[in-house]
Amino acid sequence: MRNIKLTLCYDGAGYHGWQRQPGRPTIQGELESAIEQILGDRPTTLASGRTDAGVHAIGQVATFESETTLPPDVLVRAINAKLPRSIRVLHAEDVPLDFHATLSATSKRYRYVIDNSRIPDPFQRHSCWHVGYPLDEQRMHRAGQGLKGTHDYRSFETEWPNRQTSIRTIFDIAVSRHEHLVHVEVEADGFLYNMVRAITGTLVLVGSGRRPETFAAEALAAQARREAGPTAPPQGLFLLYVRYDGVLPSTTQERP
Amino acid sequence: MRNIKLTLCYDGAGYHGWQRQPGRPTIQGELESAIEQILGDRPTTLASGRTDAGVHAIGQVATFESETTLPPDVLVRAINAKLPRSIRVLHAEDVPLDFHATLSATSKRYRYVIDNSRIPDPFQRHSCWHVGYPLDEQRMHRAGQGLKGTHDYRSFETEWPNRQTSIRTIFDIAVSRHEHLVHVEVEADGFLYNMVRAITGTLVLVGSGRRPETFAAEALAAQARREAGPTAPPQGLFLLYVRYDGVLPSTTQERP
Repeated sequence: MRNIKLTLCYDGAGYHGWQRQPGRPTIQGELESAIEQILGDRPTTLASGRTDAGVHAIGQVATFESETTLPPDVLVRAINAKLPRSIRVLHAEDVPLDFHATLSATSKRYRYVIDNSRIPDPFQRHSCWHVGYPLDEQRMHRAGQGLKGTHDYRSFETEWPNRQTSIRTIFDIAVSRHEHLVHVEVEADGFLYNMVRAITGTLVLVGSGRRPETFAAEALAAQARREAGPTAPPQGLFLLYVRYDGVLPSTTQERP
Repeated sequence: MRNIKLTLCYDGAGYHGWQRQPGRPTIQGELESAIEQILGDRPTTLASGRTDAGVHAIGQVATFESETTLPPDVLVRAINAKLPRSIRVLHAEDVPLDFHATLSATSKRYRYVIDNSRIPDPFQRHSCWHVGYPLDEQRMHRAGQGLKGTHDYRSFETEWPNRQTSIRTIFDIAVSRHEHLVHVEVEADGFLYNMVRAITGTLVLVGSGRRPETFAAEALAAQARREAGPTAPPQGLFLLYVRYDGVLPSTTQERP
């Protein structure tokens, strides 16, 4: 038996998220259907984590077990030939049978994209949140630094208290401008439900000047969802990459 | 009577081009319908030129006549509120009654976008041509220089001999790489049918090494469509801007 690890890029617009659902297009459903067409048997794929409806991925990781003897490169081309053009396999490789896409991950990095032009960019309408008033991205970056470290992030969790623990470790938060787009990137050992979207909504309140730079750290300390900013909409969120054993995947360099 | 000039950005995917057609979504149809909802009367808009089905614009120009007293800024906001999100008015201004969107234009610039990654980018699938083999963009740029000047461009015209003259002046051709994307930009006093797409198809043959650097100039000199490269598909083409009296519009700086 082989354990095959795929790196995936997808435009989540039009999909009901990662997880397979009867009668609805999902990323997992499309992927498993494509693999079934190649290998004959329908696999069960396991992802690093689910992405919600409308959320995108630049480097999602999913594994499946198979007895196939097809080499990884051939699998990439064959699966891509069966997938819709909105989903692409970027890479395939064999990993040990005890490699677990979710549990073996040491960190994940998300990017939230804000279209900060006065008039929304028609080409970005399915892949960003339009914020039409000026944002000071340097102020947002400084505010974000107060969220780094190991903390109870329940102030940025939609469904608390549904989980055992809301403690996570954020390794990096970086806010940067790229012409009319503002990127909010967060790397952590794990994420609570809607955590990046709640952090983004909080930092936007700081970037617009409606809240002081200390607002994000104060919201974290308050341990209450209502003390933080709103949850940004799903279509601006991208899963950038997943690290295993702390290693940055080489495939992340293939996309901007 | 006022003559109002609009600068428009649109994602052409899903539209049957600029020109109004009964029962089919077109850019002109959507724009005129939006203006009618604001002003009561349905205007006739005049563009700098038609764009084909699937072709995009970053800075298309269209004018319409109206007796409205609404100031330009208010018109921008009101029309945008009625347009689909795939079309945005970037700017409005009053121009003299003898200003003609087509005939007053002194030059137009198009960009053709090629996705030159090995595996096509899902996010660019409606806005580029995927060329999976390596392209040498510097070689393409050098080859393109041989097309500048005033020439009979019938080698790059789909419908020759349907026009009175195939003589045009190309002021600038520039090929550049932006990570996995290659841009082919052409600025000219006017364009023949599918001219930028035929130039792009020709330069791709040079960029892949299948033709020598002299190929583009030789195809131009041959005065025969069959001597040039294929016509690149429509979805990679963007109308970047239109100059009037040689002036670069300030609104072009709003978008990358």
